[in-house]
Amino acid sequence: MICSPIRRRDVVSTSQNEFSPTERSRVRLMRQRGSYDRRVVYDILDSALMCNVGYVIDGQPYVTPTAFWREHNHLYWHGSSASRALNAQIKDIPVCVTVAHIDGLVMARSGFHSSVNYRAVMAFGKAQLVEGLAAKRAAMNVYMDRFCPDRAATNRTVTDKELNVTKVLVMEIDEASAKVRTGQPVDDDEDYELPIWAGVIDFKTVVDQIRPDPRNLQGVPTPAGIEAYTPGATLDSVLSSIYDGDKPPR
Amino acid sequence: MICSPIRRRDVVSTSQNEFSPTERSRVRLMRQRGSYDRRVVYDILDSALMCNVGYVIDGQPYVTPTAFWREHNHLYWHGSSASRALNAQIKDIPVCVTVAHIDGLVMARSGFHSSVNYRAVMAFGKAQLVEGLAAKRAAMNVYMDRFCPDRAATNRTVTDKELNVTKVLVMEIDEASAKVRTGQPVDDDEDYELPIWAGVIDFKTVVDQIRPDPRNLQGVPTPAGIEAYTPGATLDSVLSSIYDGDKPPR
Repeated sequence: MICSPIRRRDVVSTSQNEFSPTERSRVRLMRQRGSYDRRVVYDILDSALMCNVGYVIDGQPYVTPTAFWREHNHLYWHGSSASRALNAQIKDIPVCVTVAHIDGLVMARSGFHSSVNYRAVMAFGKAQLVEGLAAKRAAMNVYMDRFCPDRAATNRTVTDKELNVTKVLVMEIDEASAKVRTGQPVDDDEDYELPIWAGVIDFKTVVDQIRPDPRNLQGVPTPAGIEAYTPGATLDSVLSSIYDGDKPPR
Repeated sequence: MICSPIRRRDVVSTSQNEFSPTERSRVRLMRQRGSYDRRVVYDILDSALMCNVGYVIDGQPYVTPTAFWREHNHLYWHGSSASRALNAQIKDIPVCVTVAHIDGLVMARSGFHSSVNYRAVMAFGKAQLVEGLAAKRAAMNVYMDRFCPDRAATNRTVTDKELNVTKVLVMEIDEASAKVRTGQPVDDDEDYELPIWAGVIDFKTVVDQIRPDPRNLQGVPTPAGIEAYTPGATLDSVLSSIYDGDKPPR
């Protein structure tokens, strides 16, 4: 463990390695599945393309799926300046960012013990606007490179006009918890004597195919940055391999 | 179009075929991607295993991933009676249920037009408790059959004790919208002249493998209900093929 001073805000963490749960983020049920370990939380986040952002407008909750990326202890997402969601999220309101990888269907001998294998994170904080063209441009460049290394440098440059109609949001993770289930069902002892099939059906999200735009200029080379997206490769492993939120490209 | 009377609650729908959007569910941006068509909404829901339930406790939004199923215009999910999430959701508070299938990464010639292919639904309503052992049992049986036809009849019977520590929630969908993006990037006209590779990286979530529990009794047959989960089959097609929320098994 790295020795480190207590962080600026006690609520955030009492160590570098773990989030400190409060009533908001504490895993209450199936506690053996819960973790506040930053490595566990960050790895689940870095292997996901989309998150679900929860926020409240006039007492009504909304959950918006959006692509996102992590830089150290901050999460970023973006959208149109006209987005009602983003405009609500920056009003100093609490936000919940959830990611869930679905890994399998757990078929127990009873419905009660049937379950799902998953890797999920709930992260809490408040979103803020990334202000200024330079900061927005830098963020959007990381965003492009997050999914395809070196893409920002090879794409057509982002214009000021585009940045002006784009909002980039950043949320420091105040608290987060991970919840993970793996493996076979855990049935009641006596149910193991029953002639009922039990097992796990594993799922995986994979690269299906790369489809070049028919309008690509002839001979234009495929970017090296998408080499990791090999058909059949799992998306979580590709996303983890091409980007490390602890070492964002800036 | 089926001729039908105006439904009981005007807010729900003015026709059998479409949800009527209000400020809450109207798709504001990229309207061409939006739909209020019940068929579109229901198909996206029926092809998903998990949803993300958004709800508010003391002003704080939470987004909880959970397995769910649809019966006609109602969504069901369940959990432990001790669940803080479920106990909050049944307190006559508005809830948002979001489902998102991630279909691909859309790599445009500019960051601005880069995007994600997806099929998403946001459904709004209020959750209620399914009360009474018989109603809970019936719901849990549909739940089992939703993922594996005939599973409820072949599993060990659900006990009253199990039902007593389980909460089943049902939400009538008051409003819902779907948002779908497919296909290649749509770049600025002049950018098509640039020697930049563009295209789509398609993803799919598939059945990886079926792993029988090593503790299965010898010779116990694999249930017919999981036949559709063929390795390589896409999860959305499997889930759609084995269950139709318009014809739930009860």
